[in-house]
Amino acid sequence: MEQTLKVALFGVTGYTGAELLRILARHPGVEVTSLVSSSSAGRTLGEVLPSLSLSPLSSKRLVPEPEEEFDLAFLCLPHEVSLTTVPRLLAGGKKIIDLSGAYRIKDPEAYPSFYGFTHEAPELLEKAVYGLPEIFREEIRTADLIANPGCYPTAALLALYPLLREGVELESIVIHALSGVSGAGRQTRQRFHFPEMAENCFPYALEKHRHTPEIEDVIERVSGIPMKVRFTPVVVPLVRGMLVTVYVRTGRRDLRELYLQTYANEPFVRVTESPPMTKWVSGTNLCLLYPHYDDRTATAVIVSAIDNLGKGASLQAVQNMNLMFGFEETLSIPVEGLFP
Amino acid sequence: MEQTLKVALFGVTGYTGAELLRILARHPGVEVTSLVSSSSAGRTLGEVLPSLSLSPLSSKRLVPEPEEEFDLAFLCLPHEVSLTTVPRLLAGGKKIIDLSGAYRIKDPEAYPSFYGFTHEAPELLEKAVYGLPEIFREEIRTADLIANPGCYPTAALLALYPLLREGVELESIVIHALSGVSGAGRQTRQRFHFPEMAENCFPYALEKHRHTPEIEDVIERVSGIPMKVRFTPVVVPLVRGMLVTVYVRTGRRDLRELYLQTYANEPFVRVTESPPMTKWVSGTNLCLLYPHYDDRTATAVIVSAIDNLGKGASLQAVQNMNLMFGFEETLSIPVEGLFP
Amino acid sequence: MEQTLKVALFGVTGYTGAELLRILARHPGVEVTSLVSSSSAGRTLGEVLPSLSLSPLSSKRLVPEPEEEFDLAFLCLPHEVSLTTVPRLLAGGKKIIDLSGAYRIKDPEAYPSFYGFTHEAPELLEKAVYGLPEIFREEIRTADLIANPGCYPTAALLALYPLLREGVELESIVIHALSGVSGAGRQTRQRFHFPEMAENCFPYALEKHRHTPEIEDVIERVSGIPMKVRFTPVVVPLVRGMLVTVYVRTGRRDLRELYLQTYANEPFVRVTESPPMTKWVSGTNLCLLYPHYDDRTATAVIVSAIDNLGKGASLQAVQNMNLMFGFEETLSIPVEGLFP
Amino acid sequence: MEQTLKVALFGVTGYTGAELLRILARHPGVEVTSLVSSSSAGRTLGEVLPSLSLSPLSSKRLVPEPEEEFDLAFLCLPHEVSLTTVPRLLAGGKKIIDLSGAYRIKDPEAYPSFYGFTHEAPELLEKAVYGLPEIFREEIRTADLIANPGCYPTAALLALYPLLREGVELESIVIHALSGVSGAGRQTRQRFHFPEMAENCFPYALEKHRHTPEIEDVIERVSGIPMKVRFTPVVVPLVRGMLVTVYVRTGRRDLRELYLQTYANEPFVRVTESPPMTKWVSGTNLCLLYPHYDDRTATAVIVSAIDNLGKGASLQAVQNMNLMFGFEETLSIPVEGLFP
Repeated sequence: MEQTLKVALFGVTGYTGAELLRILARHPGVEVTSLVSSSSAGRTLGEVLPSLSLSPLSSKRLVPEPEEEFDLAFLCLPHEVSLTTVPRLLAGGKKIIDLSGAYRIKDPEAYPSFYGFTHEAPELLEKAVYGLPEIFREEIRTADLIANPGCYPTAALLALYPLLREGVELESIVIHALSGVSGAGRQTRQRFHFPEMAENCFPYALEKHRHTPEIEDVIERVSGIPMKVRFTPVVVPLVRGMLVTVYVRTGRRDLRELYLQTYANEPFVRVTESPPMTKWVSGTNLCLLYPHYDDRTATAVIVSAIDNLGKGASLQAVQNMNLMFGFEETLSIPVEGLFP
Repeated sequence: MEQTLKVALFGVTGYTGAELLRILARHPGVEVTSLVSSSSAGRTLGEVLPSLSLSPLSSKRLVPEPEEEFDLAFLCLPHEVSLTTVPRLLAGGKKIIDLSGAYRIKDPEAYPSFYGFTHEAPELLEKAVYGLPEIFREEIRTADLIANPGCYPTAALLALYPLLREGVELESIVIHALSGVSGAGRQTRQRFHFPEMAENCFPYALEKHRHTPEIEDVIERVSGIPMKVRFTPVVVPLVRGMLVTVYVRTGRRDLRELYLQTYANEPFVRVTESPPMTKWVSGTNLCLLYPHYDDRTATAVIVSAIDNLGKGASLQAVQNMNLMFGFEETLSIPVEGLFP
Repeated sequence: MEQTLKVALFGVTGYTGAELLRILARHPGVEVTSLVSSSSAGRTLGEVLPSLSLSPLSSKRLVPEPEEEFDLAFLCLPHEVSLTTVPRLLAGGKKIIDLSGAYRIKDPEAYPSFYGFTHEAPELLEKAVYGLPEIFREEIRTADLIANPGCYPTAALLALYPLLREGVELESIVIHALSGVSGAGRQTRQRFHFPEMAENCFPYALEKHRHTPEIEDVIERVSGIPMKVRFTPVVVPLVRGMLVTVYVRTGRRDLRELYLQTYANEPFVRVTESPPMTKWVSGTNLCLLYPHYDDRTATAVIVSAIDNLGKGASLQAVQNMNLMFGFEETLSIPVEGLFP
Repeated sequence: MEQTLKVALFGVTGYTGAELLRILARHPGVEVTSLVSSSSAGRTLGEVLPSLSLSPLSSKRLVPEPEEEFDLAFLCLPHEVSLTTVPRLLAGGKKIIDLSGAYRIKDPEAYPSFYGFTHEAPELLEKAVYGLPEIFREEIRTADLIANPGCYPTAALLALYPLLREGVELESIVIHALSGVSGAGRQTRQRFHFPEMAENCFPYALEKHRHTPEIEDVIERVSGIPMKVRFTPVVVPLVRGMLVTVYVRTGRRDLRELYLQTYANEPFVRVTESPPMTKWVSGTNLCLLYPHYDDRTATAVIVSAIDNLGKGASLQAVQNMNLMFGFEETLSIPVEGLFP
């Protein structure tokens, strides 16, 4: 790509927006032309995100609608707002990476139950490409609309993919997932008030979580077999970090070789020698995987660690952008964790 | 005291209310007759505070106004609400321990500037006894209205008291105070959202804080000399805990002896052999003091550690209650810290 | 019990010892006659545990061997040391509550593989009573030797017990367990150094953990059926707290009723209306259980929350002591959580 | 600079080494030729620092002594080891940035008392340039030996410099400093064990700290006036972050203008509109300053926030390297904080 890519960012002041801007401000092929925010229009980026107050973009003013040209829009918006923004921008000839869940599931019937709205643009669900490069890299290169994956599905699907791709028979899939609190967004809530969240952990949405159909959808698309998964998310007192453990009954035992081979050429996935720590991936786009076969119970246990704002959201979005616009896939994306 | 003391608690669902109830539920001389809450009336205590769901009071229902008799009211209310509740209850013959700041400062002129309201009951300011037993024990025993001290003043005044009592000449008093986040209450705010408060610390109210006049007021009453203090509060990522460092230029050097002697008979104050840790006092009514004289700069440096919800609020309130009603001063008040 | 029970505590300076002393110092039926410590003999309790420096036991000196009479010994010792201390004390006519794992598993063959030693007193394994009162209350009352349960088994077995007791057919038992760092003891290690453990979580002992045979042993004793469990422990950045999720394939669906009924008379177990938070049980002997039946996958999902040092260790030990010596079972055992 | 700078790093496995390598691995003008470690020689970087396991340097093996050419050595070594390593490397014609304290103070008499050793190379103390670019930029450009400043002195001196440079009369300087635990290094200690450091804060070295003479030394060199400072360091439960508050009696009141003007052209110092939060600078080389004049007590209160491993250590070392070798001063140095 010769020319500079012009980028607009919708929804600047949340955590995924902040993380995107930390990277985009330094990306050599990108110019951020518009910072769109309904709540903070008129203020500068440095004012609303003091951690970016020495960024080159610091003095840029937030606007209610883009005033300058752009080729690509990142949407860090609520699901309902993304739902209607996407068709409008596509109609204007823009490419889109949508970090919400509005276009992730292929079946429009899933939305009323899991998202609470009827999908108004079902024809775009087919057009949307699920932005998990390790599975859908080629489709991503030519996509107009990327549905950037959820954090839980990213970690869980990368843990399952080597088995799914081989068509291994799987039973009793249990996905137990720990998430840092930033995954719940920037909106304050009683349970995330520091005195109540520190020294605390708890499960939530045991009955029903939006990421269940998202995971099952991709499982079926990759393996050709519909499977139900038992998914339990738990909040732990981390700011960033996600540790997903997948349990699956299977006879397939040579997991380490299978995983090493599947991900041999992936720049952001690594099969580790010992169970991974979330701290190793803080601030990066890495996914660390550790597969273990438990002979006693004939169970594959796969541990997957990501930064929920990194590979789980914004850095994966940059990876998708790099693929869509012909940049080197790894350009400007951190892989060195902030340690300690 | 032969009879059981009947107690009403106003403002149940906040942190000081929860901490009071943790203790009062087990106090052998107390019966909690009314739990008053405007926001949660109709629900049970166990519902609004699950940490108390196996307390003997768990199934007690919250009420908008007391329905049963009581002798003593604890007020865990906003300053403005305490301001008007106090005269009403006093008129009804009740005794009161007020955990707000509405009656702590003697000078009514201070309120508009520091609390944002004109004091409507200035005649009660004289009547109110400042509930710091180590200084005002005898007045507390016979008081009808206790103004329970703020957390910062408690820690700072206990650090200064041995010098003040002796009339030692003091210059350049600097009070640098670290507070856990529970000191800011249960109301959610952006800066106390877990992802922003974890791994963070920052000063606030540098220009003006309500506890400055409260501290200066007591300094003058004890020493007879008006002094200005420079007070800086800093929030640190603790749930509970307060560490106050007081700096004062003075020629008085035998601090350790002075402090040991001053507090020799105090059940809740201890002069430590090494600088105290806040963790040592978690969940207790202790104040740990470590005085150090810095010869190089002719400065007394006194470190004071308390639990901001313990000696800094609710457990000190129970200590005041014990004094007011003739119980043993230490009855039912924890001194063993939760460690680790 | 009329007379005061004389108690010796072996292994004072670790976390389970500290937690025991926090309670025993205030227990009305107990006199702590000896504090045994090999590493800190000669120092006082207040010196080695400053959080207890205002405890009535504060000035008591630690000794290398008990110098005074005692009826009951609590052992907070390494497994290997407990192994040889138990027969010696039993021979001297003492009763014992052993907080180590040295006498928890009935089968002596398990020890070389899981504990790294050959069991030298296999005849005592039969004599030892597993100190989980909700299952073995009657045996505990008359026991001379209590093997106080591990924290993970306590939380997991209380989650499974209602199903096991009914003889419900169970398949594919997965136990995914989060533990606070205090569960790993007081010995420093690189991974538990604050800068590396804060903002971190990770699984460990994926291949093999001592608590697996302990859990399986009790499962078989209760249900009569040998079952294998898949057990994964994960360290999360809590000081205290344990959240265990048990997954089991079963056709039994009326879980809530079953759990409410099973534990209707238990003073320390509560079936919650919503998934429990570890913070609700901090500093208590509570076990909170939340059973959920997932129709989509025919899986029972039971969440269990305890304080790993409370019901998971020292407070359960006090509960056992109360049973063994005829005190009221709940005497002096906290059920109100420190909140926040 | 046309050619690639060859760099050796001594002391790889500690926190300052890890932070240096996070940046140097991506610096376009640098080639890291040797990773020196006595404790971990033979292992690869990725093995000893898993957070760098996808770094370009990951497979590089640690060596006990450099085996390849280098122009510049970064020393992340204990003080005593730096003391003797520096003369040896200088004699070999290497340039050095020493992150230890061995060459920071000009007066050799200070070392026995504050560092516990007699300085063996006092002639090099004069030659060493104190690596605080905002004060000594020109000397740094031509230095052979940089004594990279301590974290506390960096934050405190940048807070005082505008006043010192103007020769403002100052009295009663108090420096109250909060530090994250990473500042104490990677060596485990009981007080930094997670269960004891979480929910804890405490002062240390109240009597005497190495950074006191370091600060006083620079104060005198800048202002020409010897002054004593009262310095109190406090550990708070942060991984990274340092918040220093400086109190000084002075008549100078126009602080904001003075500070804005002093630092107008500094790329890494910013005068903030509100008191800074440590989280804003996490992972960066920033120093945020907030000066406030307290009229009531005639006291200047200056708050200074840095990342103790960033501007307080490794990133400042890279800034010094950039200056010494003619790179752009800001090259490859992060200024965007990791948020949240």
